[in-house]
Amino acid sequence: MSVRIFEVGPRDGLQNESKNLSIDARFEFIKRLVEAGHSDIEIGAFVSPKWIPQMEGSLSLIKKVLAAYIDGPRFWALVPNAKGFEDSLESGIKNIAVFTAASETFNLKNINTSIDGSFERFNEFLPQAKKAKMRIRGYVSTCFGCPYEGKVEERAVLKVAERLLKLGVHEISIGDTIGVANPKQVNALVKKLLKLVGPKKLALHFHDTRGLALTNIYESLEQGVNMFDSSAGGLGGCPYAPGAAGNVATDDLVYMLREMKIKTGIDLDRQVGASKFIQSEVDRELPSRFLKSRP
Amino acid sequence: MSVRIFEVGPRDGLQNESKNLSIDARFEFIKRLVEAGHSDIEIGAFVSPKWIPQMEGSLSLIKKVLAAYIDGPRFWALVPNAKGFEDSLESGIKNIAVFTAASETFNLKNINTSIDGSFERFNEFLPQAKKAKMRIRGYVSTCFGCPYEGKVEERAVLKVAERLLKLGVHEISIGDTIGVANPKQVNALVKKLLKLVGPKKLALHFHDTRGLALTNIYESLEQGVNMFDSSAGGLGGCPYAPGAAGNVATDDLVYMLREMKIKTGIDLDRQVGASKFIQSEVDRELPSRFLKSRP
Repeated sequence: MSVRIFEVGPRDGLQNESKNLSIDARFEFIKRLVEAGHSDIEIGAFVSPKWIPQMEGSLSLIKKVLAAYIDGPRFWALVPNAKGFEDSLESGIKNIAVFTAASETFNLKNINTSIDGSFERFNEFLPQAKKAKMRIRGYVSTCFGCPYEGKVEERAVLKVAERLLKLGVHEISIGDTIGVANPKQVNALVKKLLKLVGPKKLALHFHDTRGLALTNIYESLEQGVNMFDSSAGGLGGCPYAPGAAGNVATDDLVYMLREMKIKTGIDLDRQVGASKFIQSEVDRELPSRFLKSRP
Repeated sequence: MSVRIFEVGPRDGLQNESKNLSIDARFEFIKRLVEAGHSDIEIGAFVSPKWIPQMEGSLSLIKKVLAAYIDGPRFWALVPNAKGFEDSLESGIKNIAVFTAASETFNLKNINTSIDGSFERFNEFLPQAKKAKMRIRGYVSTCFGCPYEGKVEERAVLKVAERLLKLGVHEISIGDTIGVANPKQVNALVKKLLKLVGPKKLALHFHDTRGLALTNIYESLEQGVNMFDSSAGGLGGCPYAPGAAGNVATDDLVYMLREMKIKTGIDLDRQVGASKFIQSEVDRELPSRFLKSRP
């Protein structure tokens, strides 16, 4: 058995750190992740540095990474709109991610448009992306709970996933943005998602805000999910609970899978090396338990 | 469905903290745990303060707690030998715990005797404890791995559990002392333990050293285990990995179970209050994820 790990540290992780890193530091981080054996790394976002200063210089960084690793792993960039898509074309990146949410209020507060509005934005550039043979990933936020609406109905998640499938995305990442999912809830929703999306296109994206990320991954694994998003060292955080943990740590996930004899292609020692590097760059103790056990 | 949580914070937790707390601070901690609704709290150890200064004054503390809560929950104390047993009689406590390990080397290094030797010590006082109608718990350390021997065979764990059952202990706590268990391993060992020990007498005791404690508990739950040890806030640590997490955090466990609609009798807000109190007393940030999400 094998699992595909989608490393979001250089984008989702760094984007939620208070310290802004140089292009050189981000490049070095990505280099170490490549050397650890990652198949998928999200390395930047084509967003305005006015809104997300942590992602400033993504275009140069991505050009540099793509030039350095011609036969490298799949590198991904987040594209929020047509303007960002132009930059993605210029960068030469072949894999892009778009995002929406299962909660209307979250979408409005986060990207200032409704769920319908986010799909209208996708329509402005996804047809061209498909023509350019780009691989497309759709993120769906707040699938297990919303900081504004509270409970999120399963049918809201399934409806958004279905719309993304109709758009022809290649994979869908179902996010527990605020880290409120529990394994019982995961069991129920994942069963329905596997039927709708299928195991090849389905990724789960858990945050460890309340300590349940690995348990939710374990339950998803048991149901047949085999793609998970994670960030090195647990880089990132939760804007809705300052001080809390962010994305599940790649280190902890790789350790769990390795102990269960599930292949990931990732070398745990090198992963720890990459995480320690970025830990010293962001200059705070990262939440990964496995990292702390290896002082 | 319901689960019995065995709170080890005031003993296993504090024993592994570098700061030694006063009897008053420990009493206040226990008071808050009682008020949170705990059914079982381990409150001290009858050990020499030369070896374990954190447990100094356990006799006075236990007398004070028992006087304050005549109809309280089950209070427990650790009893390592006949000398400690005399103190336990003097204290008036009705529930005692003894400990041994599944690994010979760990037993030798930890308590300076073989597994056989530890059972000889038990024989010096357990018959009297049974006559006094005390409830007896047997801890088995290093059931999933040993810091000295590495792999620990399932049959070594089962053999020690069987010997404890023959001694007439009322419950057996199976410990992952160094936090190396993974859910696949837990699945296999727990199945055998449930056959041998039964669900009424079996407790699982996980450390979160590498982040897998809750996942291992979840897998144990799925198999039918319904008693788990935990410590408030994740108090404690791992002497074999300095800086790493210790016992699984009661807060995280209660949160997970509550979200899964499993009853524990523990009020999560009051639990968080107890954990925050002890966090300020030990003066370091405790590892509980749930605690961090509630600043």
